[in-house]
Amino acid sequence: MLRILQRTSRLRRAPRHLCLQSPASCTAQFLPVGSQRPPPIWGSAQLVLFSHKLHNGTDQSPAAAPERRTFSRVSEDDLAFFRKILPGRAITDPDLVESSNVDWLKSVRGSSEVLLRPQTTEEISQILRYCNSRNLAVNPQGGNTGLVGGSVPVYDEIILSTSLMNNIVSFDNISGILTCQAGCILESLSLFLEERDHIMPLDLGAKGSCQIGGNVATNAGGLRLLRYGSLHGTVLGLEVVLADGRVLDCLATLRKDNTGYDLKQLFIGSEGTLGVITAVSILCPRKPKSVNVVFLGCKTFEQLLKTFQLCRGMLGEILSAFEFLDSECMRLLNTHLKLANPISETSGSDPSHDAQKLHNFLEEAITSLLVTDGTVATEESKIKALWSLRERVTEALTHEGFNYKYDISLPVERIYQLVTDTRQHLGGRAKSVMGYGHLGDGNLHLNITSPAKDPALLATIEPFVYEWTARYHGSISAEHGLGLKKRNYIYYSKSSQAVALMGHIKAMLDPKGILNPYKTLPDNLK
Amino acid sequence: MLRILQRTSRLRRAPRHLCLQSPASCTAQFLPVGSQRPPPIWGSAQLVLFSHKLHNGTDQSPAAAPERRTFSRVSEDDLAFFRKILPGRAITDPDLVESSNVDWLKSVRGSSEVLLRPQTTEEISQILRYCNSRNLAVNPQGGNTGLVGGSVPVYDEIILSTSLMNNIVSFDNISGILTCQAGCILESLSLFLEERDHIMPLDLGAKGSCQIGGNVATNAGGLRLLRYGSLHGTVLGLEVVLADGRVLDCLATLRKDNTGYDLKQLFIGSEGTLGVITAVSILCPRKPKSVNVVFLGCKTFEQLLKTFQLCRGMLGEILSAFEFLDSECMRLLNTHLKLANPISETSGSDPSHDAQKLHNFLEEAITSLLVTDGTVATEESKIKALWSLRERVTEALTHEGFNYKYDISLPVERIYQLVTDTRQHLGGRAKSVMGYGHLGDGNLHLNITSPAKDPALLATIEPFVYEWTARYHGSISAEHGLGLKKRNYIYYSKSSQAVALMGHIKAMLDPKGILNPYKTLPDNLK
Repeated sequence: MLRILQRTSRLRRAPRHLCLQSPASCTAQFLPVGSQRPPPIWGSAQLVLFSHKLHNGTDQSPAAAPERRTFSRVSEDDLAFFRKILPGRAITDPDLVESSNVDWLKSVRGSSEVLLRPQTTEEISQILRYCNSRNLAVNPQGGNTGLVGGSVPVYDEIILSTSLMNNIVSFDNISGILTCQAGCILESLSLFLEERDHIMPLDLGAKGSCQIGGNVATNAGGLRLLRYGSLHGTVLGLEVVLADGRVLDCLATLRKDNTGYDLKQLFIGSEGTLGVITAVSILCPRKPKSVNVVFLGCKTFEQLLKTFQLCRGMLGEILSAFEFLDSECMRLLNTHLKLANPISETSGSDPSHDAQKLHNFLEEAITSLLVTDGTVATEESKIKALWSLRERVTEALTHEGFNYKYDISLPVERIYQLVTDTRQHLGGRAKSVMGYGHLGDGNLHLNITSPAKDPALLATIEPFVYEWTARYHGSISAEHGLGLKKRNYIYYSKSSQAVALMGHIKAMLDPKGILNPYKTLPDNLK
Repeated sequence: MLRILQRTSRLRRAPRHLCLQSPASCTAQFLPVGSQRPPPIWGSAQLVLFSHKLHNGTDQSPAAAPERRTFSRVSEDDLAFFRKILPGRAITDPDLVESSNVDWLKSVRGSSEVLLRPQTTEEISQILRYCNSRNLAVNPQGGNTGLVGGSVPVYDEIILSTSLMNNIVSFDNISGILTCQAGCILESLSLFLEERDHIMPLDLGAKGSCQIGGNVATNAGGLRLLRYGSLHGTVLGLEVVLADGRVLDCLATLRKDNTGYDLKQLFIGSEGTLGVITAVSILCPRKPKSVNVVFLGCKTFEQLLKTFQLCRGMLGEILSAFEFLDSECMRLLNTHLKLANPISETSGSDPSHDAQKLHNFLEEAITSLLVTDGTVATEESKIKALWSLRERVTEALTHEGFNYKYDISLPVERIYQLVTDTRQHLGGRAKSVMGYGHLGDGNLHLNITSPAKDPALLATIEPFVYEWTARYHGSISAEHGLGLKKRNYIYYSKSSQAVALMGHIKAMLDPKGILNPYKTLPDNLK
């Protein structure tokens, strides 16, 4: 049961401030612009669990690092080569390499001694050709905002950063097609496009740090997926350097191209294990002329689902996102951050039309007793305030103690059942069990808290959550990828045949396995 | 210069019948429902050129069939095996096999003696396991509506039809996710969904015959791509039988799943050369509550481009398609079919909002002198009448004599330049040179006519058109694929590295090359 929020405002039927009669549960798309703040932690499994345990050989969990493979060690000759092709950009100062060895969650730490900062595709090609011939392992790194330990070295892999590859190559204002180097920061691209009346088709909490190359490499989902679809549809072209240094030019800037296999798709979501993405072309939508955010409250998840259906039917093309939070999330926001309330965003081309459509939808939702309360925001400040509720759930969670976090994809009608079943399964063992996430995408962020780290509790949670997800044909990683932490859980969501084929593809493209080793594919791969 | 149409109607500023002052040029989405008519020929290269020439060994053109490879011949033992696992569905009657040996254009004819009609994935698995072990070549076939000779055998390949695999497995009304067998006819799926307030994300002229498995295997584009994106984004899952009979289950029904490489993408657009698609899950949009079609006339292509930009900006999310025809196309429609005029479709969730947005857009387009005339249709009969203009260009073309047809993708601002440059290049050698197509997708259907087949004219057209397309980084096959006819032109749009990698993928998934041989990949592949 989803009993969310206290009464927040009274019903007024003016379209711009339509407030209903009690709690609320849908979010969307808006995030504060201009800040270089770190990304919020949108649900990653075993947040701190791995700290200090990954490399000491005592952790036998499926998430622990495997033995170091027999790659070469970086020699003085190697360093001399790197310094020659990257003058001043082959970093070995431990203090400077440190931040690239640790992930944003501070849950995984590598021991690389070399950070390379190329500026061109040709430089990456030279580096990889050399590393492949020398059997040196490489960890490609974008903004290092990943949540599954995929973006940092596990041992002494050479870190290959795309941060200096941040040029915009072209933007076609007629078609909306942007072409840029892989190291462009997502937020910089958004600002560039906004000045040209367009937006990026994706938006994430990590926008201030994450890079478009990393977004593509991890098939980032985020807040606009409901409306603009996944990167498999919006990415039109990629330039990729393969493990042996060959440059694969699939950097088309065309909406349609049926000449042979669509090779770029292989690299979208492959987490840097099949090649290093060096440039991206992507289809960008026009900037919506109006944005509205609505917070609604439903007493049950069934009512929430019916509200979503009504919303899809009545708002149609202007619905950008449909997020939700449960009452436990609201309790934490109230308790720890003194905040109160949730959120459905729409964005369209005509403010008065959108407001009218919202008004009609809300009237119907109230009349049919689906929602009990809500509020509409159209001004930027109020929109920001409402959105901060959705964004700050993770922050509120950290005040509750130790967090067990899961990023699960399920048929939409099932997503909250996992929360209630987990709650029942754990009985009194957990401090709290709560769910929030992207309802419109069928993506649940399941969170379980305990006062401190609790191996017995973890043993009760896992594999229960993964088995439950597999039973309903869900995905154990909706948008975060597998990286290091989840690689061995892949069989919960993929068949043995499929995983074996992934292995064949890896072997074909990277026979020595130098690219981002220990990531994505399971240890027991034949 | 795009001088289209004569004056058709007078300006009335009522939103539902807004008619402007002269010609017109944008189309879209609507097609007559319920007919089993053959698909219109939306631009395929060398329409009749290949008849009677493909298999006689005298045609040295890159489109001609290569030598038969050393596959086994079908024996009596083989037939006995097929009859055992497909009782009554292993067809050898030449009269019954005939229609599956010939493509819809009647431009390619195979000589297969066996047509297999499985009903289940398991049957296909058994067939392929057997054929692979026996080194028997197989031609997977859906609705046989392809335009590049990809859907019929070249020699005596066994035809594996998915026509009897036409069950809908499930439809989730909340998420809009449909799962069905590969042999479902596109139009049947559309009718099924319309009763459930949804639509398919793709629509094509061939809808009455084409099958969803074939649509996915060829990455069909069609009339809704501008709005709903490509199948790489909307297809959520596939079940595929590999060449050796292994069943690859990637039939997820989730919007988000980042557990490993997205294998299904490999099979979208691979034209049956990597595996046989047996089931599809696909994301279906809600059915729009209102549909409007606008015909506009522009004097120049530059004005047409500016109108498109204005249209994208002002109509935004309700714009479904933006098609165009030039004055030559209109002349043919007038001359041969006694028709007069062109077409931008919108579809949205509120009829009055859409009409108001259209009204505002049209006022702006007229005031800025971008368009000189036009008309708006909202009733089904008038919409059908307007759409038939766009659909019947191909039919009108056949009355002009011999057709040379090209399906080209280019940066949108370039697409009409290919028409004018080709016209100039050919001088008086061609009877006419004209362009139409999906402007919003940057997809031009270039057509050249001559009184009869003319090898000298062809030599002047090719490789000129392909080289021109390559110079502007276009695609020589926007939506039709390569099949048999265009396989050797792949290098005009793809790098040698990319084509070589495609070859590696083919070798990995189908080492004996039994699946749809002579298709998609060039003959000189290493």
